[in-house]
Amino acid sequence: MTKRVFNFYAGPATLPLPVLEQAQKDLTNFDNIGMSMMELSHRSKEYAEVHSQASSLLRNIMGISDEYAVLWLQGGASTQFFMVPVNLQQKNKPMEYVNTGAWSKKAIKEGKFYGDVNVVASSEDKNFSYIPKGIEFSNNAAYAHITGNNTIYGTEYHKWPEAPADVPLVCDMSSNIMDKKIDVNKFGVIYAGAQKNLGPAGVTLVIARKDLLNRVPDSTPTMQKWKIHADKDSLFNTGPVWAIYMCKLSLEYLKKQGGIKAIEEKNRKKAKLLYDTIDGSDGFYKGHAKEDSRSLMNVTFNLPTPELEAQCVKEAIDHDLIGLKGHRSVGGMRASIYNAMSMDGVEALVTFLKEFQEKHQ
Amino acid sequence: MTKRVFNFYAGPATLPLPVLEQAQKDLTNFDNIGMSMMELSHRSKEYAEVHSQASSLLRNIMGISDEYAVLWLQGGASTQFFMVPVNLQQKNKPMEYVNTGAWSKKAIKEGKFYGDVNVVASSEDKNFSYIPKGIEFSNNAAYAHITGNNTIYGTEYHKWPEAPADVPLVCDMSSNIMDKKIDVNKFGVIYAGAQKNLGPAGVTLVIARKDLLNRVPDSTPTMQKWKIHADKDSLFNTGPVWAIYMCKLSLEYLKKQGGIKAIEEKNRKKAKLLYDTIDGSDGFYKGHAKEDSRSLMNVTFNLPTPELEAQCVKEAIDHDLIGLKGHRSVGGMRASIYNAMSMDGVEALVTFLKEFQEKHQ
Repeated sequence: MTKRVFNFYAGPATLPLPVLEQAQKDLTNFDNIGMSMMELSHRSKEYAEVHSQASSLLRNIMGISDEYAVLWLQGGASTQFFMVPVNLQQKNKPMEYVNTGAWSKKAIKEGKFYGDVNVVASSEDKNFSYIPKGIEFSNNAAYAHITGNNTIYGTEYHKWPEAPADVPLVCDMSSNIMDKKIDVNKFGVIYAGAQKNLGPAGVTLVIARKDLLNRVPDSTPTMQKWKIHADKDSLFNTGPVWAIYMCKLSLEYLKKQGGIKAIEEKNRKKAKLLYDTIDGSDGFYKGHAKEDSRSLMNVTFNLPTPELEAQCVKEAIDHDLIGLKGHRSVGGMRASIYNAMSMDGVEALVTFLKEFQEKHQ
Repeated sequence: MTKRVFNFYAGPATLPLPVLEQAQKDLTNFDNIGMSMMELSHRSKEYAEVHSQASSLLRNIMGISDEYAVLWLQGGASTQFFMVPVNLQQKNKPMEYVNTGAWSKKAIKEGKFYGDVNVVASSEDKNFSYIPKGIEFSNNAAYAHITGNNTIYGTEYHKWPEAPADVPLVCDMSSNIMDKKIDVNKFGVIYAGAQKNLGPAGVTLVIARKDLLNRVPDSTPTMQKWKIHADKDSLFNTGPVWAIYMCKLSLEYLKKQGGIKAIEEKNRKKAKLLYDTIDGSDGFYKGHAKEDSRSLMNVTFNLPTPELEAQCVKEAIDHDLIGLKGHRSVGGMRASIYNAMSMDGVEALVTFLKEFQEKHQ
C-alpha cells in the first residue's frame, strides 16, 4: 500500500488519494491515446473535452448561471489583486475593501496602484481574530472587495456582507471556495487560487458576471483583460492544462461524494470536532479566532508556551500529522482541513492533541 | 508495455518517457514522504530542494552566470509580452522589435501599450519564411526584441543580431530554448513558456540580467515586477510547483543525455534527416522556410494540394504519428521535433513520408 500521511499544509494542500491515483494511472498514456495529459496540445480534442468538463462540473457543483463566465487563468490570487482593479476600476469611484488580514492587505496594496481605495472595515485592532460586523460599502464604489477566508488567522465570513445594488461584490475565495453552499448571484466576481480547495497550484479560477467584463479600458494589455479570456473560453493562450485536468478530477470526485451539500456537512463535522477539542481542553489549547468568525478550513490555536507549540508540531510529525506549524503572524499551530482532508485525518489529529495535552499539561 | 505514439504537437509537446515514468512513480508518494509533489507547501524543505535544483540545473546546462536571475513565473510568453515593456521601458526611448511572425506581432502589440515601438525589420513580405539579415537597432532603444524561433512558420535565428552596447537584447525563446548552445551573455533577457522544450505548460522561464531589474517604476503592481520575483527567488507567491518539478526532471534527463552539446548534435541530425527527405522528394514536399532560416524545432512543409495535405495528416495518425497538421497561416504540415522527440520518431516520420509520396505521387 502507498504510504500516505495526513497533510495539514495551508496550501498547496492535500488532494484526494483516488484523484492522485487516477492521474498516476493516466500519466504516460491518457485514455489510451499514447500521450500524457501534459503532452497534449491545448487545441487537441482530448484536452478540449477535459477543459469543458472542468468548467461544466464547476458550474454544476457551485450552481453558476450562464450570466457568469468561468475562467481558468494563471498567476494565483496575487495576480488577481491587480487584475481586479484593472478590470473593474471606474473613473472617480473609490475601490472599497474590507481588511481581514495579510491577504486583504496585499489586495488593498495593489488596488492603490489604480486609484482611490477606501478600507471600510478592518479587524486589525485584534490581530485579525474576527470578521467585522455591519460592513457598509458606498453607493458609488467601483466595487466592494472582501477576503472570504483568512488562511493565516483562521477566520471566515459566515454571512456575506451586502453591497449596494450597483456595486459588484468581489471575493477572494482562495481558501474557502466550495467549502459550503453559497449563492453565486450575490457576487460580481469570485476568484481563487486552486491550490487549497480545488486542485494543485498553477491555476487560478475567476468567476465573473458577464456584464462586468466590458468595463475594462481598451488601453489594457491583452492578457490582463478578463474579457479576452472569457471570449476565448480561457484558451487565448496555452493554459496550465495539467492543473486544469487535476481540477477536473477533483471536481468529479467532489461530485461523487455528494456535491456541495455533502461536503459542507462533512466540513462542519470536521471543524466542530477540532474546535470542540480546543474548547474542551481547559485552556491548554486556545483558539485564535473569535467563535462567530471561526474558519471551517483553517483552525488556528496556541498552546501555553512557544516551546510547547514547537514540541507539539514536532511530535505531530512523528505521528504522520504534517504541516501544523502556525504562520508567524499568529504563532502556535494551524490545521488546514480543506475539502480533501478526511474525517480520519481530523480524528487522528484530535486523538494526538488529547494525548499531547495529557502528557505535557 | 505502455502504449506511446510519436507526438509532433507544436506545444504542449512530447516529454521524455523516463521523465513521465519518474513523475508517475512519485505521484502519490514523493520520496517516501507520504505526499505528492502537488500537495507540498511551496515553503516545505522538500519543495525548496526541487526548486533550487531546477534553477541550478538550468544555470549549469545553459551556462548562466550569477549576473543573471532565473525566474519561474506563470502566464506564458503572452504575459511576458507586456512584462517586458513594464520592466524595461524607459522614458523617451523607443522599444525596438523584429517581426518574424505571429508571436513577434503579439509581442509588438503589447509593447505599444507602453510607448513608441519601432519595427526595425520584418519578414512579413514573404509570409515570414525567413529571418531578416543585417538587422540594426538604434543606439537609444530601450531594448531590442526578437523571437528566437517561429513555431508557426518554422524559422529560427542561426546567428543572433547584435544590439548596441547599452541596449539589452530580449529574446522570446519559447520554442527553441536549449535546442543549441548559446552565449547567454549576449542577451539582456531571455524568456520562454516551458511547454515546448523545457517541461509541461504552466510555467514560464525568465532569465534576466540583474542590472536590468532596477529599471521598473515603483508605481508598478507587485506581481508585474521581475525584481520582486528575483528578490524572492520566485517564491513571492505560490508558484506552479508541479510544473517546476517536471522541468527539474526534464533538465536532469537532458543533463544525463550529455547536456546542450549532445542535444544540439541530436537536434541537427533529426532536422537534417527531415529536411533532406523534403529536399529529396522532387518537389512533392516543399519546405516553407528559406534554407538558411530553417528551424531545428519546427519543420514546416506543404504538399501539392490541400487535399493531399489533409490525407497525409490523416494517414500519419494511422501510423501513430500525431499532431502534424500545419498552422492555418502556412497550411500543410508541421513536424515539431523538440529536444524530447527521439531520433526513432523522426525516422518513423521519414519512412512514412516516403511511403506516402510513393503511394500518392
